[in-house]
Amino acid sequence: MNTKETTRYTFNEASSRCKSFPFFRQEGVLFMEKKTVLVILAHPDGKNSFNAAIARTAVVALEESGYSPVLRDLYAEGFDPVMPPEEATRPVAEAPEAMKLEMEQVKNCAGMVFVHPNWWGGPPAILRGWIDRVVRNGFAYGFTEKGAWQGLSDKIIQVFSTSNTPRDYEVQVYGDPLENFWKTIVFSVVGSKSFERRNFEQIILSDEEMRKNWLKEVDAAIRRRF
Amino acid sequence: MNTKETTRYTFNEASSRCKSFPFFRQEGVLFMEKKTVLVILAHPDGKNSFNAAIARTAVVALEESGYSPVLRDLYAEGFDPVMPPEEATRPVAEAPEAMKLEMEQVKNCAGMVFVHPNWWGGPPAILRGWIDRVVRNGFAYGFTEKGAWQGLSDKIIQVFSTSNTPRDYEVQVYGDPLENFWKTIVFSVVGSKSFERRNFEQIILSDEEMRKNWLKEVDAAIRRRF
Repeated sequence: MNTKETTRYTFNEASSRCKSFPFFRQEGVLFMEKKTVLVILAHPDGKNSFNAAIARTAVVALEESGYSPVLRDLYAEGFDPVMPPEEATRPVAEAPEAMKLEMEQVKNCAGMVFVHPNWWGGPPAILRGWIDRVVRNGFAYGFTEKGAWQGLSDKIIQVFSTSNTPRDYEVQVYGDPLENFWKTIVFSVVGSKSFERRNFEQIILSDEEMRKNWLKEVDAAIRRRF
Repeated sequence: MNTKETTRYTFNEASSRCKSFPFFRQEGVLFMEKKTVLVILAHPDGKNSFNAAIARTAVVALEESGYSPVLRDLYAEGFDPVMPPEEATRPVAEAPEAMKLEMEQVKNCAGMVFVHPNWWGGPPAILRGWIDRVVRNGFAYGFTEKGAWQGLSDKIIQVFSTSNTPRDYEVQVYGDPLENFWKTIVFSVVGSKSFERRNFEQIILSDEEMRKNWLKEVDAAIRRRF
């Protein structure tokens, strides 16, 4: 069954937001036709940027590897990264429907591929806010009297980031803040089956040949890891 | 002249957004009545949170020290942290009016006080996005053939952050990411007259007495630094 046929099973807002959303419900139970992988793109230009090319390459490689990629272009969707006051103070069970759907997507996926540029040592605000609102205490991690638990320890995580700062400077002066954010601050807390990140730099100095080779690397990484 | 008298000089959107906006224009020239300091608050609860109390304490201390504080409650203003595609690719001179006004505020202030909780080792997305959109290349920093220049080297910068992670863990495991973000990644690039940051932790374990003493520290820090 190809992903196009699955679109009739979409539910809630997902149908209008995700081009291929291979989940469906039957009598309240969630089914998946193939293992999904979320490709989460956070770049103002989701069509012509190198980030967009990375995301598209990942999508094709995932499809050819037997997965159902779900491309989440946060800019195109108009994702709101500002966690509203009422959401911040309430438990996950009382999260808005749209956020519950986000969590359901994450819960049911085999892995996530994040694609974004480096803005001030972090992802653009739209993706920071996606983390703030979706990767919540009580869903992705939590604490009990017996200690901390990790909610995403069965996921394969791949981050592709792009930057213009020379690698040595980024690592030595800034302390590789993207690696620190994704690997140590987020995924060491919520867990992962395996984590890898590849940063492509310096975009501003790259030529077509370099970018082509980088996309080959993206393709190979996805096929190797999924 | 107290700050209330200055409100009749407000212009553009600023008037509705800032309680005291002590700039005014005469024949196209910008005047200030007192030195302004921006107090930039990024917390979902701008009224009853400890972050809000820090911001109010800073505002009072600034007023009593002869400054005109401008309280920017980003949540209450509904600041949009998502940099639109057309803004990302255009130079600062073609930024939207609202962003030009933001930059004018920053350019004309004596300093900035940032107040925010630690979310995943960074400020909430609403403040990350404020940095993305306001602290732009060509305004706050830039590069010429002669080298890099810093646009904010005349500003006094104070950051007050709050968190629940134990200090040792935050520093040793996460590498003190907020200090790294504000001091090394942002203000070492854009410059500052002087930079200080104070993190209050662990909020979740604090009692009223501790928080009262922390607010006294806020008051003292502002009076010492401005």
